[in-house]
Amino acid sequence: MADLIITSPSNPRLKSLAALRRRRTREETAQTLIEGYEELSLALGAGVRPEALYFCPELMLDPTSQVRVVDEMRRQGVETVQVSRTAFERAAYREGPDGFLAVVPSVVRRCADLVVGPTALTVLCQGVEKPGNLGAMLRTADAAGAEAVVAADPVTDWGNPNLVRASKGTVFSVPVASDSTADTLAWLDARGIALVATTPDTDVLHTEVDYTGPVAIAVGAEKYGLTDEVLDHAAHKVRIPMVGKANSLNVATSAAIVIYEAVRQRGTAARPSSH
Amino acid sequence: MADLIITSPSNPRLKSLAALRRRRTREETAQTLIEGYEELSLALGAGVRPEALYFCPELMLDPTSQVRVVDEMRRQGVETVQVSRTAFERAAYREGPDGFLAVVPSVVRRCADLVVGPTALTVLCQGVEKPGNLGAMLRTADAAGAEAVVAADPVTDWGNPNLVRASKGTVFSVPVASDSTADTLAWLDARGIALVATTPDTDVLHTEVDYTGPVAIAVGAEKYGLTDEVLDHAAHKVRIPMVGKANSLNVATSAAIVIYEAVRQRGTAARPSSH
Repeated sequence: MADLIITSPSNPRLKSLAALRRRRTREETAQTLIEGYEELSLALGAGVRPEALYFCPELMLDPTSQVRVVDEMRRQGVETVQVSRTAFERAAYREGPDGFLAVVPSVVRRCADLVVGPTALTVLCQGVEKPGNLGAMLRTADAAGAEAVVAADPVTDWGNPNLVRASKGTVFSVPVASDSTADTLAWLDARGIALVATTPDTDVLHTEVDYTGPVAIAVGAEKYGLTDEVLDHAAHKVRIPMVGKANSLNVATSAAIVIYEAVRQRGTAARPSSH
Repeated sequence: MADLIITSPSNPRLKSLAALRRRRTREETAQTLIEGYEELSLALGAGVRPEALYFCPELMLDPTSQVRVVDEMRRQGVETVQVSRTAFERAAYREGPDGFLAVVPSVVRRCADLVVGPTALTVLCQGVEKPGNLGAMLRTADAAGAEAVVAADPVTDWGNPNLVRASKGTVFSVPVASDSTADTLAWLDARGIALVATTPDTDVLHTEVDYTGPVAIAVGAEKYGLTDEVLDHAAHKVRIPMVGKANSLNVATSAAIVIYEAVRQRGTAARPSSH
Protein backbone atom coordinates (compact mmCIF):
# COMPACT_ATOMS: atom_id res chain seq x y z
CA MET A 1 0.00 0.00 0.00
CA ALA A 2 2.94 2.33 0.62
CA ASP A 3 6.15 2.87 -1.31
CA LEU A 4 8.05 3.19 1.93
CA ILE A 5 7.45 2.57 5.62
CA ILE A 6 9.10 4.67 8.32
CA THR A 7 8.98 3.70 11.97
CA SER A 8 11.87 5.71 13.44
CA PRO A 9 11.27 9.33 14.49
CA SER A 10 14.93 10.04 13.64
CA ASN A 11 14.57 8.96 10.01
CA PRO A 12 16.28 11.55 7.78
CA ARG A 13 13.20 11.82 5.55
CA LEU A 14 11.22 13.05 8.54
CA LYS A 15 13.97 15.50 9.38
CA SER A 16 13.75 16.95 5.88
CA LEU A 17 10.01 17.39 6.46
CA ALA A 18 10.70 19.28 9.67
CA ALA A 19 13.14 21.51 7.80
CA LEU A 20 10.24 22.71 5.60
CA ARG A 21 8.89 24.56 8.60
CA ARG A 22 11.67 27.08 7.96
CA ARG A 23 11.01 29.74 5.35
CA ARG A 24 14.53 29.53 3.98
CA THR A 25 14.20 25.81 3.32
CA ARG A 26 10.84 26.35 1.65
CA GLU A 27 12.38 28.97 -0.62
CA GLU A 28 15.44 26.85 -1.41
CA THR A 29 13.47 23.71 -2.22
CA ALA A 30 10.40 25.46 -3.70
CA GLN A 31 8.34 23.11 -1.55
CA THR A 32 5.87 23.51 1.26
CA LEU A 33 3.81 21.29 3.57
CA ILE A 34 0.11 20.57 3.79
CA GLU A 35 -1.11 19.00 7.00
CA GLY A 36 -4.54 17.51 7.51
CA TYR A 37 -7.04 15.58 5.42
CA GLU A 38 -9.39 18.51 4.85
CA GLU A 39 -6.62 20.89 3.81
CA LEU A 40 -5.12 18.27 1.51
CA SER A 41 -8.49 17.55 -0.08
CA LEU A 42 -8.95 21.24 -0.85
CA ALA A 43 -5.49 21.45 -2.40
CA LEU A 44 -6.08 18.31 -4.49
CA GLY A 45 -9.40 19.75 -5.62
CA ALA A 46 -7.53 22.87 -6.72
CA GLY A 47 -5.22 20.75 -8.88
CA VAL A 48 -2.20 20.56 -6.59
CA ARG A 49 -0.10 17.43 -7.14
CA PRO A 50 1.92 16.36 -4.08
CA GLU A 51 5.55 15.35 -4.46
CA ALA A 52 5.20 12.96 -1.53
CA LEU A 53 2.41 11.91 0.82
CA TYR A 54 3.17 10.85 4.38
CA PHE A 55 0.35 9.06 6.17
CA CYS A 56 -0.49 7.20 9.35
CA PRO A 57 -3.72 5.13 9.28
CA GLU A 58 -3.81 4.89 13.10
CA LEU A 59 -4.23 8.67 13.34
CA MET A 60 -6.90 8.98 10.64
CA LEU A 61 -10.40 9.90 11.74
CA ASP A 62 -11.91 7.53 9.18
CA PRO A 63 -9.13 5.19 8.03
CA THR A 64 -11.33 2.99 5.82
CA SER A 65 -12.37 5.80 3.50
CA GLN A 66 -9.35 8.05 3.92
CA VAL A 67 -6.80 5.39 3.03
CA ARG A 68 -8.41 5.41 -0.43
CA VAL A 69 -6.95 8.86 -1.01
CA VAL A 70 -3.52 7.38 -0.37
CA ASP A 71 -4.15 4.57 -2.83
CA GLU A 72 -5.40 7.01 -5.44
CA MET A 73 -2.32 9.22 -4.98
CA ARG A 74 -0.07 6.22 -5.34
CA ARG A 75 -1.87 5.16 -8.52
CA GLN A 76 -1.15 8.65 -9.88
CA GLY A 77 2.54 8.20 -9.23
CA VAL A 78 2.83 10.18 -5.98
CA GLU A 79 5.33 8.67 -3.59
CA THR A 80 3.47 7.43 -0.51
CA VAL A 81 5.20 6.91 2.82
CA GLN A 82 3.55 5.14 5.74
CA VAL A 83 4.79 6.47 9.07
CA SER A 84 4.41 4.92 12.54
CA ARG A 85 2.26 6.79 15.00
CA THR A 86 5.14 7.89 17.22
CA ALA A 87 7.22 9.06 14.29
CA PHE A 88 4.25 10.83 12.66
CA GLU A 89 3.34 12.68 15.81
CA ARG A 90 6.94 13.85 16.09
CA ALA A 91 7.01 15.02 12.48
CA ALA A 92 3.62 16.72 12.58
CA TYR A 93 3.52 20.47 12.94
CA ARG A 94 0.17 20.75 14.62
CA GLU A 95 -1.27 19.17 17.74
CA GLY A 96 -3.66 16.30 17.21
CA PRO A 97 -2.45 15.34 13.70
CA ASP A 98 -4.97 13.40 11.59
CA GLY A 99 -2.49 11.22 9.71
CA PHE A 100 -1.97 13.27 6.54
CA LEU A 101 1.11 15.31 5.67
CA ALA A 102 2.03 16.16 2.07
CA VAL A 103 4.98 17.85 0.45
CA VAL A 104 3.77 20.05 -2.40
CA PRO A 105 5.36 22.56 -4.79
CA SER A 106 5.42 26.08 -3.36
CA VAL A 107 3.05 28.69 -4.63
CA VAL A 108 5.52 31.16 -6.10
CA ARG A 109 3.82 33.70 -8.28
CA ARG A 110 4.30 37.36 -9.02
CA CYS A 111 1.60 39.79 -10.05
CA ALA A 112 2.64 39.41 -13.69
CA ASP A 113 1.71 35.70 -13.48
CA LEU A 114 -1.87 36.41 -12.42
CA VAL A 115 -4.70 36.21 -14.92
CA VAL A 116 -7.72 38.30 -13.95
CA GLY A 117 -10.96 39.12 -15.71
CA PRO A 118 -12.25 42.57 -16.79
CA THR A 119 -14.17 43.21 -13.55
CA ALA A 120 -11.80 41.46 -11.17
CA LEU A 121 -12.36 41.67 -7.43
CA THR A 122 -8.90 41.39 -5.92
CA VAL A 123 -7.36 41.82 -2.48
CA LEU A 124 -4.05 43.46 -1.62
CA CYS A 125 -2.44 42.75 1.77
CA GLN A 126 0.54 44.96 2.48
CA GLY A 127 2.99 43.79 5.14
CA VAL A 128 0.44 41.72 7.07
CA GLU A 129 2.43 39.86 9.71
CA LYS A 130 0.33 37.12 11.22
CA PRO A 131 -0.04 33.93 9.20
CA GLY A 132 -3.45 33.40 10.85
CA ASN A 133 -4.69 36.73 9.49
CA LEU A 134 -3.50 35.99 5.95
CA GLY A 135 -5.09 32.55 6.15
CA ALA A 136 -8.38 34.02 7.34
CA MET A 137 -8.33 36.55 4.47
CA LEU A 138 -7.80 33.75 1.98
CA ARG A 139 -10.86 31.90 3.30
CA THR A 140 -12.88 35.09 2.84
CA ALA A 141 -11.42 35.72 -0.61
CA ASP A 142 -12.27 32.14 -1.57
CA ALA A 143 -15.83 32.45 -0.28
CA ALA A 144 -16.31 35.78 -2.07
CA GLY A 145 -14.87 34.50 -5.34
CA ALA A 146 -12.00 36.99 -5.38
CA GLU A 147 -9.82 36.47 -8.42
CA ALA A 148 -6.50 37.12 -6.72
CA VAL A 149 -4.88 37.96 -3.40
CA VAL A 150 -1.56 39.77 -3.57
CA ALA A 151 0.86 40.07 -0.66
CA ALA A 152 2.85 43.25 -1.18
CA ASP A 153 6.16 43.38 0.67
CA PRO A 154 5.12 40.27 2.57
CA VAL A 155 6.46 39.41 6.01
CA THR A 156 5.12 35.85 5.71
CA ASP A 157 5.48 33.57 2.67
CA TRP A 158 2.44 31.76 1.25
CA GLY A 159 3.99 28.42 2.26
CA ASN A 160 4.07 29.18 5.99
CA PRO A 161 2.47 26.11 7.63
CA ASN A 162 0.34 28.21 9.98
CA LEU A 163 -0.92 30.18 7.00
CA VAL A 164 -1.68 27.02 4.99
CA ARG A 165 -3.56 25.66 7.97
CA ALA A 166 -5.46 28.87 8.80
CA SER A 167 -6.42 29.16 5.13
CA LYS A 168 -7.96 25.65 5.28
CA GLY A 169 -6.06 24.94 2.08
CA THR A 170 -7.56 27.90 0.18
CA VAL A 171 -4.03 29.19 -0.43
CA PHE A 172 -4.05 26.53 -3.17
CA SER A 173 -7.44 27.41 -4.63
CA VAL A 174 -7.32 31.22 -4.61
CA PRO A 175 -4.73 32.65 -7.01
CA VAL A 176 -2.10 34.32 -4.82
CA ALA A 177 1.04 36.28 -5.58
CA SER A 178 3.83 38.06 -3.75
CA ASP A 179 5.51 41.18 -5.03
CA SER A 180 7.01 44.49 -4.03
CA THR A 181 4.54 47.28 -3.33
CA ALA A 182 5.84 49.24 -6.33
CA ASP A 183 5.40 46.32 -8.72
CA THR A 184 1.98 45.54 -7.29
CA LEU A 185 0.79 49.11 -7.85
CA ALA A 186 2.23 49.10 -11.37
CA TRP A 187 0.37 45.85 -12.10
CA LEU A 188 -2.91 47.32 -10.86
CA ASP A 189 -2.43 50.37 -13.07
CA ALA A 190 -1.58 48.27 -16.12
CA ARG A 191 -4.74 46.19 -15.62
CA GLY A 192 -6.93 49.24 -14.93
CA ILE A 193 -7.79 47.97 -11.46
CA ALA A 194 -8.93 50.74 -9.08
CA LEU A 195 -7.30 50.70 -5.66
CA VAL A 196 -9.57 51.07 -2.62
CA ALA A 197 -7.40 51.58 0.45
CA THR A 198 -8.70 51.07 3.99
CA THR A 199 -7.53 53.60 6.55
CA PRO A 200 -8.98 55.30 9.62
CA ASP A 201 -7.89 58.68 8.21
CA THR A 202 -10.74 59.48 5.86
CA ASP A 203 -14.36 60.61 6.04
CA VAL A 204 -15.50 58.25 3.29
CA LEU A 205 -17.24 55.11 4.56
CA HIS A 206 -16.50 51.78 2.93
CA THR A 207 -20.14 51.61 1.82
CA GLU A 208 -19.90 54.90 -0.10
CA VAL A 209 -17.74 53.81 -3.04
CA ASP A 210 -18.48 51.70 -6.10
CA TYR A 211 -16.93 48.24 -6.23
CA THR A 212 -18.68 46.97 -9.35
CA GLY A 213 -15.75 47.61 -11.68
CA PRO A 214 -12.28 46.08 -11.49
CA VAL A 215 -11.14 46.79 -7.94
CA ALA A 216 -8.43 45.89 -5.44
CA ILE A 217 -9.32 46.16 -1.75
CA ALA A 218 -6.17 46.97 0.23
CA VAL A 219 -5.45 46.35 3.90
CA GLY A 220 -2.21 47.04 5.71
CA ALA A 221 -0.07 45.65 8.51
CA GLU A 222 -1.72 44.88 11.85
CA LYS A 223 -0.09 47.73 13.73
CA TYR A 224 0.64 50.40 11.18
CA GLY A 225 -1.87 49.96 8.38
CA LEU A 226 -1.06 50.86 4.78
CA THR A 227 2.00 52.89 3.87
CA ASP A 228 1.77 56.30 2.23
CA GLU A 229 2.99 54.70 -0.99
CA VAL A 230 -0.29 52.78 -1.19
CA LEU A 231 -2.53 55.46 0.30
CA ASP A 232 -1.27 58.08 -2.15
CA HIS A 233 -1.98 55.72 -5.04
CA ALA A 234 -5.55 54.92 -4.03
CA ALA A 235 -8.57 55.83 -6.14
CA HIS A 236 -10.56 55.82 -2.89
CA LYS A 237 -9.58 55.84 0.74
CA VAL A 238 -12.33 54.33 2.89
CA ARG A 239 -12.92 53.64 6.55
CA ILE A 240 -15.18 51.19 8.32
CA PRO A 241 -17.43 53.01 10.83
CA MET A 242 -16.39 52.20 14.38
CA VAL A 243 -17.63 53.44 17.71
CA GLY A 244 -16.08 51.09 20.23
CA LYS A 245 -13.26 51.42 22.68
CA ALA A 246 -10.81 49.01 21.02
CA ASN A 247 -8.47 50.79 18.66
CA SER A 248 -9.37 48.76 15.60
CA LEU A 249 -11.01 45.75 14.09
CA ASN A 250 -8.78 42.81 13.34
CA VAL A 251 -7.24 43.24 9.87
CA ALA A 252 -8.83 40.05 8.51
CA THR A 253 -12.22 41.15 9.85
CA SER A 254 -11.83 44.57 8.22
CA ALA A 255 -10.96 42.94 4.92
CA ALA A 256 -14.01 40.65 5.17
CA ILE A 257 -16.37 43.55 5.82
CA VAL A 258 -15.16 45.51 2.80
CA ILE A 259 -14.92 42.46 0.52
CA TYR A 260 -18.51 41.53 1.34
CA GLU A 261 -19.69 45.09 0.71
CA ALA A 262 -18.23 44.60 -2.77
CA VAL A 263 -20.06 41.26 -3.07
CA ARG A 264 -23.30 42.94 -2.02
CA GLN A 265 -22.92 45.67 -4.64
CA ARG A 266 -22.06 43.14 -7.32
CA GLY A 267 -25.27 41.25 -6.57
CA THR A 268 -23.61 37.96 -5.76
CA ALA A 269 -20.36 36.23 -5.03
CA ALA A 270 -18.96 35.26 -8.42
CA ARG A 271 -16.72 32.37 -9.32
CA PRO A 272 -13.70 33.70 -11.18
CA SER A 273 -13.79 32.86 -14.87
CA SER A 274 -10.11 31.99 -15.07
CA HIS A 275 -7.06 31.80 -12.88
CA MET B 1 5.63 52.26 45.18
CA ALA B 2 4.21 48.77 45.69
CA ASP B 3 2.29 47.28 48.58
CA LEU B 4 4.22 44.06 48.22
CA ILE B 5 7.30 42.82 46.37
CA ILE B 6 7.63 39.24 45.14
CA THR B 7 10.89 37.85 43.88
CA SER B 8 10.33 34.07 44.13
CA PRO B 9 8.55 32.25 41.30
CA SER B 10 7.23 29.77 43.88
CA ASN B 11 5.47 32.45 45.90
CA PRO B 12 1.95 31.22 46.80
CA ARG B 13 0.38 34.46 45.52
CA LEU B 14 1.74 33.72 42.08
CA LYS B 15 0.42 30.17 42.30
CA SER B 16 -3.04 31.50 43.03
CA LEU B 17 -2.70 33.65 39.90
CA ALA B 18 -1.81 30.59 37.84
CA ALA B 19 -4.86 28.81 39.26
CA LEU B 20 -7.07 31.45 37.62
CA ARG B 21 -6.19 29.96 34.26
CA ARG B 22 -8.58 27.15 35.16
CA ARG B 23 -12.26 27.78 34.54
CA ARG B 24 -13.29 26.08 37.77
CA THR B 25 -11.11 28.42 39.82
CA ARG B 26 -12.48 31.42 37.96
CA GLU B 27 -16.01 30.31 38.72
CA GLU B 28 -15.27 29.54 42.38
CA THR B 29 -13.50 32.83 43.04
CA ALA B 30 -15.59 34.97 40.66
CA GLN B 31 -12.29 36.40 39.43
CA THR B 32 -10.44 36.48 36.16
CA LEU B 33 -7.12 37.77 34.80
CA ILE B 34 -6.23 40.60 32.48
CA GLU B 35 -2.78 40.49 30.94
CA GLY B 36 -1.18 43.33 29.10
CA TYR B 37 -1.14 47.11 29.34
CA GLU B 38 -3.46 47.72 26.38
CA GLU B 39 -6.06 45.20 27.57
CA LEU B 40 -5.91 46.58 31.11
CA SER B 41 -6.31 50.14 29.86
CA LEU B 42 -9.45 49.16 27.94
CA ALA B 43 -10.89 47.43 30.99
CA LEU B 44 -10.11 50.42 33.22
CA GLY B 45 -11.72 52.68 30.66
CA ALA B 46 -14.81 50.49 30.85
CA GLY B 47 -14.98 50.98 34.61
CA VAL B 48 -13.41 47.72 35.75
CA ARG B 49 -11.72 47.98 39.15
CA PRO B 50 -8.91 45.44 39.70
CA GLU B 51 -8.70 43.54 42.97
CA ALA B 52 -4.94 43.35 42.61
CA LEU B 53 -2.37 44.59 40.12
CA TYR B 54 0.87 42.66 39.53
CA PHE B 55 3.55 44.55 37.67
CA CYS B 56 7.17 44.33 36.57
CA PRO B 57 8.78 47.62 35.43
CA GLU B 58 11.64 45.77 33.70
CA LEU B 59 9.17 44.18 31.28
CA MET B 60 7.21 47.35 30.50
CA LEU B 61 7.57 48.82 27.03
CA ASP B 62 7.50 52.35 28.42
CA PRO B 63 8.18 52.08 32.18
CA THR B 64 8.30 55.82 32.85
CA SER B 65 4.75 56.48 31.71
CA GLN B 66 3.26 53.07 32.42
CA VAL B 67 4.35 52.98 36.05
CA ARG B 68 2.02 55.94 36.55
CA VAL B 69 -0.93 53.60 36.01
CA VAL B 70 0.36 51.51 38.91
CA ASP B 71 0.64 54.58 41.12
CA GLU B 72 -2.85 55.70 40.16
CA MET B 73 -4.28 52.25 40.94
CA ARG B 74 -2.56 52.25 44.31
CA ARG B 75 -3.95 55.68 45.09
CA GLN B 76 -7.40 54.30 44.38
CA GLY B 77 -6.87 51.54 46.91
CA VAL B 78 -5.98 48.69 44.53
CA GLU B 79 -3.37 46.35 46.00
CA THR B 80 -0.21 46.63 43.88
CA VAL B 81 2.41 43.88 43.79
CA GLN B 82 5.81 44.33 42.20
CA VAL B 83 7.15 41.07 40.79
CA SER B 84 10.71 40.23 39.72
CA ARG B 85 11.28 39.58 36.06
CA THR B 86 11.87 35.83 36.45
CA ALA B 87 8.85 35.38 38.66
CA PHE B 88 6.63 37.52 36.41
CA GLU B 89 7.61 35.62 33.29
CA ARG B 90 6.76 32.38 35.06
CA ALA B 91 3.39 33.68 36.20
CA ALA B 92 2.45 35.23 32.85
CA TYR B 93 0.08 33.36 30.61
CA ARG B 94 1.28 34.73 27.33
CA GLU B 95 4.67 34.82 25.69
CA GLY B 96 6.46 38.14 25.80
CA PRO B 97 4.58 39.60 28.79
CA ASP B 98 4.63 43.40 29.04
CA GLY B 99 4.70 43.66 32.83
CA PHE B 100 0.98 44.02 33.60
CA LEU B 101 -1.26 41.34 35.11
CA ALA B 102 -4.44 42.21 36.99
CA VAL B 103 -6.96 40.18 38.94
CA VAL B 104 -10.46 41.52 38.25
CA PRO B 105 -14.00 40.48 39.17
CA SER B 106 -15.47 38.03 36.67
CA VAL B 107 -18.08 39.16 34.22
CA VAL B 108 -20.99 37.02 35.37
CA ARG B 109 -24.24 38.20 33.86
CA ARG B 110 -27.38 36.49 32.62
CA CYS B 111 -29.68 37.82 29.90
CA ALA B 112 -32.02 39.17 32.57
CA ASP B 113 -29.21 41.47 33.78
CA LEU B 114 -28.76 43.12 30.38
CA VAL B 115 -30.23 46.52 29.66
CA VAL B 116 -30.87 47.15 25.97
CA GLY B 117 -32.52 49.98 24.08
CA PRO B 118 -35.63 49.83 21.87
CA THR B 119 -33.69 49.17 18.64
CA ALA B 120 -30.93 47.08 20.11
CA LEU B 121 -28.39 45.43 17.84
CA THR B 122 -27.31 42.30 19.72
CA VAL B 123 -25.27 39.20 18.94
CA LEU B 124 -25.99 35.63 20.01
CA CYS B 125 -23.18 33.05 19.92
CA GLN B 126 -24.40 29.53 20.53
CA GLY B 127 -21.85 26.94 21.59
CA VAL B 128 -18.89 28.71 19.98
CA GLU B 129 -15.81 26.79 21.13
CA LYS B 130 -12.70 28.76 20.36
CA PRO B 131 -11.85 31.61 22.73
CA GLY B 132 -10.14 33.39 19.82
CA ASN B 133 -13.38 33.42 17.83
CA LEU B 134 -15.41 34.78 20.74
CA GLY B 135 -12.76 37.42 21.33
CA ALA B 136 -12.78 38.44 17.68
CA MET B 137 -16.59 38.72 17.74
CA LEU B 138 -16.39 40.99 20.78
CA ARG B 139 -13.99 43.31 18.96
CA THR B 140 -16.45 43.50 16.07
CA ALA B 141 -19.42 43.98 18.41
CA ASP B 142 -17.51 46.76 20.14
CA ALA B 143 -16.64 48.47 16.86
CA ALA B 144 -20.23 48.18 15.61
CA GLY B 145 -21.72 49.48 18.84
CA ALA B 146 -23.66 46.30 19.57
CA GLU B 147 -25.57 46.61 22.85
CA ALA B 148 -25.00 43.06 24.04
CA VAL B 149 -23.33 39.77 23.16
CA VAL B 150 -24.92 36.65 24.64
CA ALA B 151 -23.20 33.26 24.81
CA ALA B 152 -25.92 30.62 24.78
CA ASP B 153 -24.88 27.24 26.17
CA PRO B 154 -21.29 28.44 26.18
CA VAL B 155 -18.33 26.10 25.93
CA THR B 156 -15.96 28.89 27.02
CA ASP B 157 -16.51 31.30 29.90
CA TRP B 158 -16.06 35.04 29.39
CA GLY B 159 -13.08 34.99 31.78
CA ASN B 160 -10.98 32.62 29.65
CA PRO B 161 -7.57 34.32 29.37
CA ASN B 162 -7.29 33.60 25.64
CA LEU B 163 -10.71 35.16 25.13
CA VAL B 164 -9.84 38.24 27.21
CA ARG B 165 -6.68 38.62 25.19
CA ALA B 166 -8.26 38.04 21.77
CA SER B 167 -11.00 40.51 22.67
CA LYS B 168 -8.33 43.16 23.37
CA GLY B 169 -10.20 43.84 26.60
CA THR B 170 -13.55 44.53 24.89
CA VAL B 171 -15.07 41.73 26.99
CA PHE B 172 -15.12 44.44 29.68
CA SER B 173 -16.60 47.20 27.51
CA VAL B 174 -19.27 45.31 25.57
CA PRO B 175 -22.13 44.06 27.79
CA VAL B 176 -21.90 40.26 27.72
CA ALA B 177 -24.01 37.52 29.27
CA SER B 178 -24.11 33.73 29.43
CA ASP B 179 -27.32 31.75 29.58
CA SER B 180 -29.03 28.60 28.41
CA THR B 181 -30.36 28.67 24.87
CA ALA B 182 -33.95 28.39 26.16
CA ASP B 183 -33.54 31.33 28.54
CA THR B 184 -31.80 33.38 25.85
CA LEU B 185 -34.65 32.83 23.39
CA ALA B 186 -37.21 33.66 26.08
CA TRP B 187 -35.33 36.88 26.82
CA LEU B 188 -35.30 37.88 23.13
CA ASP B 189 -39.05 37.26 22.93
CA ALA B 190 -39.75 39.23 26.09
CA ARG B 191 -37.77 42.20 24.70
CA GLY B 192 -39.33 41.92 21.23
CA ILE B 193 -35.93 41.33 19.65
CA ALA B 194 -36.14 39.57 16.25
CA LEU B 195 -33.78 36.64 15.82
CA VAL B 196 -31.79 36.48 12.57
CA ALA B 197 -30.08 33.09 12.37
CA THR B 198 -27.15 32.38 10.05
CA THR B 199 -27.20 28.99 8.34
CA PRO B 200 -26.16 27.61 4.97
CA ASP B 201 -29.60 25.97 4.62
CA THR B 202 -31.69 28.84 3.30
CA ASP B 203 -32.14 30.77 0.07
CA VAL B 204 -32.36 34.13 1.80
CA LEU B 205 -29.17 36.19 1.62
CA HIS B 206 -27.99 38.10 4.67
CA THR B 207 -28.46 41.33 2.72
CA GLU B 208 -32.16 40.63 2.07
CA VAL B 209 -33.58 41.15 5.56
CA ASP B 210 -34.21 44.30 7.58
CA TYR B 211 -31.95 44.90 10.57
CA THR B 212 -33.17 48.39 11.47
CA GLY B 213 -35.43 47.22 14.32
CA PRO B 214 -34.38 45.40 17.48
CA VAL B 215 -32.44 42.39 16.23
CA ALA B 216 -30.17 39.59 17.44
CA ILE B 217 -27.72 38.15 14.93
CA ALA B 218 -27.05 34.51 15.78
CA VAL B 219 -24.07 32.35 14.87
CA GLY B 220 -23.44 28.78 15.96
CA ALA B 221 -20.61 26.44 16.87
CA GLU B 222 -17.61 26.22 14.53
CA LYS B 223 -18.39 22.73 13.28
CA TYR B 224 -22.12 22.30 13.59
CA GLY B 225 -23.65 25.76 13.38
CA LEU B 226 -26.86 26.67 15.18
CA THR B 227 -29.11 24.01 16.71
CA ASP B 228 -32.67 23.43 15.53
CA GLU B 229 -33.87 25.02 18.75
CA VAL B 230 -32.47 28.36 17.56
CA LEU B 231 -33.20 27.90 13.84
CA ASP B 232 -36.85 27.04 14.51
CA HIS B 233 -37.17 30.16 16.65
CA ALA B 234 -35.70 32.55 14.06
CA ALA B 235 -37.68 35.36 12.45
CA HIS B 236 -35.28 35.07 9.50
CA LYS B 237 -32.77 32.45 8.46
CA VAL B 238 -30.05 33.97 6.30
CA ARG B 239 -26.94 32.80 4.51
CA ILE B 240 -23.83 34.62 3.36
CA PRO B 241 -23.26 34.03 -0.36
CA MET B 242 -20.22 31.81 -0.89
CA VAL B 243 -18.69 30.35 -4.00
CA GLY B 244 -15.35 29.04 -2.88
CA LYS B 245 -14.02 25.60 -2.25
CA ALA B 246 -13.62 25.87 1.53
CA ASN B 247 -16.67 24.64 3.38
CA SER B 248 -17.32 27.84 5.27
CA LEU B 249 -16.16 31.20 6.43
CA ASN B 250 -14.73 31.41 9.92
CA VAL B 251 -17.56 31.95 12.43
CA ALA B 252 -16.18 35.29 13.63
CA THR B 253 -15.83 36.47 10.03
CA SER B 254 -19.42 35.45 9.27
CA ALA B 255 -20.64 37.32 12.31
CA ALA B 256 -18.69 40.43 11.25
CA ILE B 257 -20.15 40.39 7.73
CA VAL B 258 -23.74 40.20 8.99
CA ILE B 259 -23.20 42.66 11.85
CA TYR B 260 -21.77 45.22 9.42
CA GLU B 261 -24.66 44.69 7.00
CA ALA B 262 -26.86 45.72 9.94
CA VAL B 263 -24.62 48.76 10.55
CA ARG B 264 -24.88 49.69 6.87
CA GLN B 265 -28.69 49.52 6.94
CA ARG B 266 -28.83 51.52 10.15
CA GLY B 267 -26.81 54.29 8.54
CA THR B 268 -23.99 54.25 11.06
CA ALA B 269 -22.42 52.36 13.89
CA ALA B 270 -24.23 53.61 16.98
CA ARG B 271 -22.93 53.86 20.47
CA PRO B 272 -25.36 52.09 22.81
CA SER B 273 -27.37 54.52 24.90
CA SER B 274 -27.10 52.46 28.05
CA HIS B 275 -25.60 49.22 29.31
